[in-house]
Amino acid sequence: MAMKVSLITFTEQPELTVARAARLCYSAVGIDQLSRQMSVEDCHKLLGKIIDLGHWSALEHASFTFAVEGVSRALSHQLVRHRLASYSQQSQRYVAADQPTVVVPPTIEAQPEALVVFRQLVEAAASAYRKLTELGIPREDARYVLPNAAETKLVMTMNARELRHFFRLRCCRRAQWEIRHLAETILGLVQAVAPRLFAGAGAECQTTGFCPEGELSCGLAPVRQ
Amino acid sequence: MAMKVSLITFTEQPELTVARAARLCYSAVGIDQLSRQMSVEDCHKLLGKIIDLGHWSALEHASFTFAVEGVSRALSHQLVRHRLASYSQQSQRYVAADQPTVVVPPTIEAQPEALVVFRQLVEAAASAYRKLTELGIPREDARYVLPNAAETKLVMTMNARELRHFFRLRCCRRAQWEIRHLAETILGLVQAVAPRLFAGAGAECQTTGFCPEGELSCGLAPVRQ
Amino acid sequence: MAMKVSLITFTEQPELTVARAARLCYSAVGIDQLSRQMSVEDCHKLLGKIIDLGHWSALEHASFTFAVEGVSRALSHQLVRHRLASYSQQSQRYVAADQPTVVVPPTIEAQPEALVVFRQLVEAAASAYRKLTELGIPREDARYVLPNAAETKLVMTMNARELRHFFRLRCCRRAQWEIRHLAETILGLVQAVAPRLFAGAGAECQTTGFCPEGELSCGLAPVRQ
Amino acid sequence: MAMKVSLITFTEQPELTVARAARLCYSAVGIDQLSRQMSVEDCHKLLGKIIDLGHWSALEHASFTFAVEGVSRALSHQLVRHRLASYSQQSQRYVAADQPTVVVPPTIEAQPEALVVFRQLVEAAASAYRKLTELGIPREDARYVLPNAAETKLVMTMNARELRHFFRLRCCRRAQWEIRHLAETILGLVQAVAPRLFAGAGAECQTTGFCPEGELSCGLAPVRQ
Repeated sequence: MAMKVSLITFTEQPELTVARAARLCYSAVGIDQLSRQMSVEDCHKLLGKIIDLGHWSALEHASFTFAVEGVSRALSHQLVRHRLASYSQQSQRYVAADQPTVVVPPTIEAQPEALVVFRQLVEAAASAYRKLTELGIPREDARYVLPNAAETKLVMTMNARELRHFFRLRCCRRAQWEIRHLAETILGLVQAVAPRLFAGAGAECQTTGFCPEGELSCGLAPVRQ
Repeated sequence: MAMKVSLITFTEQPELTVARAARLCYSAVGIDQLSRQMSVEDCHKLLGKIIDLGHWSALEHASFTFAVEGVSRALSHQLVRHRLASYSQQSQRYVAADQPTVVVPPTIEAQPEALVVFRQLVEAAASAYRKLTELGIPREDARYVLPNAAETKLVMTMNARELRHFFRLRCCRRAQWEIRHLAETILGLVQAVAPRLFAGAGAECQTTGFCPEGELSCGLAPVRQ
Repeated sequence: MAMKVSLITFTEQPELTVARAARLCYSAVGIDQLSRQMSVEDCHKLLGKIIDLGHWSALEHASFTFAVEGVSRALSHQLVRHRLASYSQQSQRYVAADQPTVVVPPTIEAQPEALVVFRQLVEAAASAYRKLTELGIPREDARYVLPNAAETKLVMTMNARELRHFFRLRCCRRAQWEIRHLAETILGLVQAVAPRLFAGAGAECQTTGFCPEGELSCGLAPVRQ
Repeated sequence: MAMKVSLITFTEQPELTVARAARLCYSAVGIDQLSRQMSVEDCHKLLGKIIDLGHWSALEHASFTFAVEGVSRALSHQLVRHRLASYSQQSQRYVAADQPTVVVPPTIEAQPEALVVFRQLVEAAASAYRKLTELGIPREDARYVLPNAAETKLVMTMNARELRHFFRLRCCRRAQWEIRHLAETILGLVQAVAPRLFAGAGAECQTTGFCPEGELSCGLAPVRQ
C-alpha cells in the first residue's frame, strides 16, 4: 500500500494573511489600509524578514489540512503525539478490517526472506481477526490482533508555525522512514502553495546548519560544540 | 471609536472539510471517494448529527481569521486568555499613541457627568504620555499612563470548535458588554459563511436551555438543579 | 498482563493551591494574607463552589503524574489523543520486544476458542519479530508485525481540569473497556489524595444526570431532549 | 510597589520524576524497578544528557506554581500570551481599585520631571475612578480609566519545558524590563529547587551563544550568519 497525501484545503491567501497580521503589530494604521498599501513585493519582503528573525507567531494564522492514506498505525501513533494539530482518524473500533491492507517497511521489502515472514504474519493476523469476529468478538477487541503495519487513514490540520516545527523533527534522518516520508511529502505540498511561509523549512540541520542530536547524529551536518 | 470586526479569511470549503473528516472516522473507503459520494444533503445531515452529539473534534479542521479594531486593551486582555487561538496584536511598545483613540463604555456614554470625568482623564493620559515621550521616556514605558480604554487592533484566528466554546462563555450576559459584543459580531460573521458549523451556537443557555451560573444567574434561563 | 497504575507524584497541597488561586481572583488582599486567613473549612467550601459553578480554570494549577504499565498499544494510541497532557512512552523503536507481553481483551479471555486464536497469533507475531531481527531488520521495522495487544508503559501528567474532562469521556460505558478501566483507576487514585478537586467527577452522565450520546446511548441515563 | 514573586508549590521530586520518565522511553524494565535502580548520580547524568540533546518532552512532567504581586497590567497582558500555562488573575471587574497601587517604570523613577507627570496622572486616574463609581458606574466600566501601570496579582503555573522557553524569550534584553525582571526572578527560584532541570536556562543567547534578533540585536552575543 503506497502512501497517499493530498492537501485538501487551506486558509485562503495564506501568505497575505500572515503578512497582514505581522505588519499590524508594528503599524498604527487600520487593517484595510494595510492591505491596500501592501504590494506583493512588500508582502514577500516582510515574510522573509519574520522568518529570518524567527518571529513565528504570525504564521499561526495560516492552516493547512491534509488527507493521509496508506500509512501504518505505527506512523499514526507517532504523528498524533504532535499536540498542536487536529486529527480525524479512521476508527478500528467501528470499521471492519476483514481484508486488511498493510504498509511494508522498505528494509523488509528489500529482503525476500524477511518479506515472506512479514507476509505470513500479516495473513495470520487477518485470519485471526476474521475468526474472532466470526466467534462474536466485537471489532474493537478483535483488532487487538492486528499488526502495527495495518493501514490507517486520517485527516490532519496544522498551522504553518507548527508545520515548520514538525519538519524540523520529522524531516530529520533520525526520524523513522515512514513519518519522514510523510513530512517530506507535506513539505513539498505546502511549499507549492505558500513558498514564502516555508522558505528554508526542513530538518533542524537544513535550517540551522547544525545537528542537535549529539552523539546520535547521522553525520550529515556538524554537531554544535 | 466604534468596534470594527471583519472576517478576513478562512479555510476554503469549511463545511465540506469538516464533513469529510467526520465521515472518514467511520468509513472504510478512501477520501477521494468519500468526497465524490457526499451530496450536499449528506453533508448537511452529517454536520447536524455531529453537532447534536457534541462530537466536536472534526470542527477543528475549519479555521477563521478576523481583523478586530476599535476595541479596548481591557477587552484584548480578556480575549487573549483564550489559549486555543492565535493572536497578532498592535504593540504599544512600538507604535506611538500620541493621539490615543479610546473605547467609551456605554454606561459612561449614557451619563453626561460621567462622560466628562472620563473624557478629562483620557485627555490627561494623552497629555502625560506626550510629555513623557518628550522627556525622552521610551514608548514602552510612557504607555504605563495609558488607560485600559485605549484602543487596540488585532488579528485573531480560531477554529470552529474553539469558536463555539468562545460563544458559550462570551455571548453570556454575565460576560462584559465589550467582549460580548465582539462575540456576537463574530457569531454573525461565521454563521453567514458556515451556518451548519455554528447551528445553535451562542451562550451556554442558548445551547442547553439552562444557565450554569448558579446564584449569579441573570435569570434569562433556569439554573439546573 | 494486568494493568498497573500508580500516582507517582503530584503538585504539593493540590487542594489548597487551587483554593488560593480561586480566591485571589475576587480578593484585594495579597497572597500571603489569603493563605493565613483561609481555614480548612473555607478552603473546602470554596472548592465546592467553583466546582458547582464549573469555574474550572483554577483547577489547572494542580497536576498529577502517573506511571502506567500493562496497557496495550491500542489503549496508548487512544490515550495520547488527549492533547492537554504530557506523555513519555516506552519506544518500540529502541526497546527489544523479543518476549512480548500482551493485553488480552476480556471478551476473548472469556471464550476458550477465541483465546486459542488470540494466543496463536500472539505467538506467531513474536516469532516473526524474532526472525526479522535475526535477519538484520532493525527493531523499528520489525515492530510492524507486533499486534495492537502488545504491552506498553508510559508516564502521563495531566492537571485536575483536564483529568475531569478525561473522566467525562473515558469513564463512559461507550469508551473502550481498557481505557475506561484506566480512567476509573486514575479517578480512584486522585480522589484519594484530592477528594474535593474530583468531587462528582466521572462520566458525563454521572456529573450531569444526562447522556450526551443520543441514539448511541447505553441507556444508563436519560438522553437530553 | 515592588514586584513580589514566590514559588508556592511544585511537583514533588521534580528532578527524579523527569529522570524516571526519560529513562522509561528507552528501557524494558518496569517503573518501580527503574526508580530503585536509579542512583542520584544516574539521575543527574541522565538529566544532563536530555538537556544537552534538547529532548525536552520529559521536562513537562514537573510543574511549578508562582504567586506574583506588584506587577503591572502591562506586564500581565504580555505574560498571558504564553499559552502553555495556567493563570488565575485578580479581576478588575470585581475587585475595587479605590486606592490603586501602581508600578513605576525605572526610566520614569530616575527622572524627577517625568516622575511628577506620572504621579499626577496616576492620581487623576484614581480620582476619576472614584468619581465614576460614585456616579453609579459599575467597577467593570470605571476601570477603563485605570492606567496600564495599575498593579495586579496572579497565580501562574508552568511546566519546566515551557519555563525554559519563557526564559529564552523573556530573559532577553529586548524583552521589556518588567517581564524580564519577572523571568529572572522565576529563574532564580526554580534553579534553587531543581538546578538540573534549569541548567543553562536563560535568554536564547545564554543557551546557544548566538543572538536570534538580527539587526535588532542588543550586541551582547553575535548574530548567527
